[in-house]
Amino acid sequence: MRGLFISVEGPDGSGKSTQVTNIKEFFESRGRDVVLSREPGGTVIGERIRNIILDKDLKEMDPMTEAMLYAASRAQHVSQVIMPALSEGKVVICDRFVDSSLAYQGCGRGLGEAVAVINSYAVRGCMPDLTFLMKLDPEVGKHRIEENRAEQDRLEQEKLAFHRKVYEGFLELEKEHPDRIVGIDASLAVDRIRDLIYAKLEELLG
Amino acid sequence: MRGLFISVEGPDGSGKSTQVTNIKEFFESRGRDVVLSREPGGTVIGERIRNIILDKDLKEMDPMTEAMLYAASRAQHVSQVIMPALSEGKVVICDRFVDSSLAYQGCGRGLGEAVAVINSYAVRGCMPDLTFLMKLDPEVGKHRIEENRAEQDRLEQEKLAFHRKVYEGFLELEKEHPDRIVGIDASLAVDRIRDLIYAKLEELLG
Repeated sequence: MRGLFISVEGPDGSGKSTQVTNIKEFFESRGRDVVLSREPGGTVIGERIRNIILDKDLKEMDPMTEAMLYAASRAQHVSQVIMPALSEGKVVICDRFVDSSLAYQGCGRGLGEAVAVINSYAVRGCMPDLTFLMKLDPEVGKHRIEENRAEQDRLEQEKLAFHRKVYEGFLELEKEHPDRIVGIDASLAVDRIRDLIYAKLEELLG
Repeated sequence: MRGLFISVEGPDGSGKSTQVTNIKEFFESRGRDVVLSREPGGTVIGERIRNIILDKDLKEMDPMTEAMLYAASRAQHVSQVIMPALSEGKVVICDRFVDSSLAYQGCGRGLGEAVAVINSYAVRGCMPDLTFLMKLDPEVGKHRIEENRAEQDRLEQEKLAFHRKVYEGFLELEKEHPDRIVGIDASLAVDRIRDLIYAKLEELLG
């Protein structure tokens, strides 16, 4: 059975983790082996890198350093987890992948094309078969996060203007990759979103 | 007064730190402000990254992850330490810089051109005015390290074949950049090496 790689992207607070769980259930109910993962992180080395990236005390972090740390975590994730799982025919579901770097560091931090070049070395051609983009006004997402978390990480703490630029980046990617990226209205009811995603997954499985 | 950027490169055990101290004394005796630094590291964020890179328990580290972590540390170092110091007219002396990545990850790990591309984003044109390459048979260097250190880091623990490839990489760089890289026979007596380096520095200052 051929491996499948699904990523879920979108602003903080857009309900990605709920849908990651739903996608997992979709495939498990069909008897598939599922590997759940997340970025940054997903490996011991990646989690060590994640601790640096999200540390809210490291306010002096250079945007290029940030982009390279995400790419370093991704390179490890792809080689140690994603590629081996896919080659064993498993379904890999990833909470954030390379589109997040393109949106957050490429657009949000304004690093542009450099982020795509650096990440091409991290990803080595291993791209998702399907990406769900949870579309939600970044202001609404930011409110949800502020209401639900006692403490925010270094990226979550960024101002709304930054999150707006990130969101524009995501919308741009959706336009550039209509075959891979499926936009989902994240303001809909959770069950309705699940149904939309399940319909798309049925279509993918043919 | 114009800032000056000097790097010292070479295999482990080739006596880089002794010469870094000598170069510092050369410039201080001429009344210059000197900033000593090292890679990986050189900043709070860089030292956090260094701990991951050199951790001998992380044997599963992907070569591309390693290359990106070095570049991430370098991006922070350049933007937070080296560029500001140079713009204040200081002398920056760095124990290892981008040539180490080209030799260790580019040649030693066989990543080739990718390392140069990734590092061009980290360095952003900020290259040393002069680089001293401490030339020593990697076997001799490895013996020195094994005799003098209770514990070796992840890179030092690599086999001799790896260190030979790294050394070939350094020699290749010396050939490619004869104006910047000055090869020094590191098997000479320490005082003789210092004299050779001082002569070159006098020449640099005109």
